Amino acid sequence: MIKIALDAMGGDYAPAEIVRGAREAARELEVQIMLVGHREKIQQELAGDNAGGLLSIVHASEVVGMDEHPVSAIRKKRDSSIVVATQLVKDGAADAVVSAGSTGAQMASSLFILGRIAGVDRPAISTLLPTANGVVALLDAGANVDCRPQHLQQFAVMGSLYAEKILGLANPKVGLVNIGAEETKGNELTLAAYNLLQETNINFIGNVEGRDLFFGAVSVAVCDGFVGNVILKSAEGLAMYILGMFKQELGKLEDILGREKIMHILGGFQRRMDYAEYGGAPLLGVDGVSVICHGSSRARAIKNAVRVAKEAVEQQLVRAIKVSLEKENFKEGKY
Amino acid sequence: MIKIALDAMGGDYAPAEIVRGAREAARELEVQIMLVGHREKIQQELAGDNAGGLLSIVHASEVVGMDEHPVSAIRKKRDSSIVVATQLVKDGAADAVVSAGSTGAQMASSLFILGRIAGVDRPAISTLLPTANGVVALLDAGANVDCRPQHLQQFAVMGSLYAEKILGLANPKVGLVNIGAEETKGNELTLAAYNLLQETNINFIGNVEGRDLFFGAVSVAVCDGFVGNVILKSAEGLAMYILGMFKQELGKLEDILGREKIMHILGGFQRRMDYAEYGGAPLLGVDGVSVICHGSSRARAIKNAVRVAKEAVEQQLVRAIKVSLEKENFKEGKY
Repeated sequence: MIKIALDAMGGDYAPAEIVRGAREAARELEVQIMLVGHREKIQQELAGDNAGGLLSIVHASEVVGMDEHPVSAIRKKRDSSIVVATQLVKDGAADAVVSAGSTGAQMASSLFILGRIAGVDRPAISTLLPTANGVVALLDAGANVDCRPQHLQQFAVMGSLYAEKILGLANPKVGLVNIGAEETKGNELTLAAYNLLQETNINFIGNVEGRDLFFGAVSVAVCDGFVGNVILKSAEGLAMYILGMFKQELGKLEDILGREKIMHILGGFQRRMDYAEYGGAPLLGVDGVSVICHGSSRARAIKNAVRVAKEAVEQQLVRAIKVSLEKENFKEGKY
Repeated sequence: MIKIALDAMGGDYAPAEIVRGAREAARELEVQIMLVGHREKIQQELAGDNAGGLLSIVHASEVVGMDEHPVSAIRKKRDSSIVVATQLVKDGAADAVVSAGSTGAQMASSLFILGRIAGVDRPAISTLLPTANGVVALLDAGANVDCRPQHLQQFAVMGSLYAEKILGLANPKVGLVNIGAEETKGNELTLAAYNLLQETNINFIGNVEGRDLFFGAVSVAVCDGFVGNVILKSAEGLAMYILGMFKQELGKLEDILGREKIMHILGGFQRRMDYAEYGGAPLLGVDGVSVICHGSSRARAIKNAVRVAKEAVEQQLVRAIKVSLEKENFKEGKY
């Protein structure tokens, strides 16, 4: 049975919502979950219900705060929940690590403890955005704010495999986030990356503009971590803003439609726009499965993140990336 | 009376919608409009109604196509509508140029014919995005895909003046588009720009994340043209996508609400999200008023762009930028 090391102390609602999510995940997904963190606090939340033995506790005395400098924090706090959880994967005691704590700390511990896959210069965070006909995997979503063209090439290869293995898409369409459809459009980075992407074996369909991103033009959208993070956060902001307007308008119709119907309609939208539906974002390129959750994750988001981790393990995503990048590297003769 | 040189041949719906917009603008805004382009075609659209003498024609035999290389096109086509219209401003025959044609061609002609303001390395396109409590001026929206820190500093100063003069805001809040609120967050460009922005006399409030952009955290958001264009286009795409979903949901309620009410509600949203409401985007930093319109502008968008051009002239925006950048330059001792 697949074993997930879950950082019980990470996130705005830890440990309560993390433990709740772990319990739901264990039951629904039939996985063993090691809750990593302060034993007494976790036991308190478990309140005797360990999901029929699927939940266990691995004690860790420290926690890395959101405001701490990631690298120095994980170096100092060797007994922090994120470091201990990641080490469990390195030691083979767990198959994957999931955390809603400091993204920087999780990236740092994944890099230092699990290490990078050969051929990957920079691991990337792959997030899912809702689109008119499904989802699009956007990477990098914030791990690397300054990128070189070959980094984007590696993101594209990893993103394509992620879409294939986790989203179950055959030959997924991969696009380069750009300001025009034409090959000649873009900044120095995207112009150079365009050529490198053409050299890969993936289904690169060319540039994709933000306008087409939300209409499912591609299944994988590649960009540097600065652009990706800006897209992700402005999409969140704009969606919240528009949904707020809907709420107001629908509110005016309460006497005609009734509160229940309005709540039902709004619920549909909110689910559609809710990152929690899409679970965690895997850190692609490290030598192990590491799934990053939104800091404000509640039980459902945690459960869905555990599902993503489980699928990544079952589908041997890490192995697929290793094999594929070796091929690409050989073909490229670079790195 | 203020005179606007309007490129009658530029845009997807030229000349028909351009001429219609010109007529509405002339009557509503009491401006003289020189319709620049093919005389016979414009006369046909005018059909004898020159808005009581407010509309006139300046013949130009050529048109720059959307697919042409901007710089070589305006060099070759000396008698193109955009070149002739821009020259009218240079010669003092018109106070501003407005076009919905090739953005690149308008930028090139504005740069070569009007020239740059001293202290401006790169003119920037300033667009307005709707927010929960008004609008935010986003610049650069696509003129400069690769920027240096001082370019962003200049954008900030120009954007602040634009918000002051055109949006009528006192001491407008200016933010740097970034991936975190903290001063230490960002890529090489934004980290360096942050320090330069602190040295200006504008009301720089620090970094602004995409999430806050649409909730009116700032009145001016500064970024490089690649990021700005991506934000603009993904916002357009996401808004269209969400409105589409809402349309579907409301459609299901037609028998309860009635078609008219539904159309009324949707109309409100579409207006809110419609760039046409916000008129054209001025090219800030050139030595004259040059307003860029969306290629798919119809009459209303053209009219609103003419309004923006009129206000820029009345408020002496160009002069304000000159004065302010001289001050800044002196203070900085750079450029």
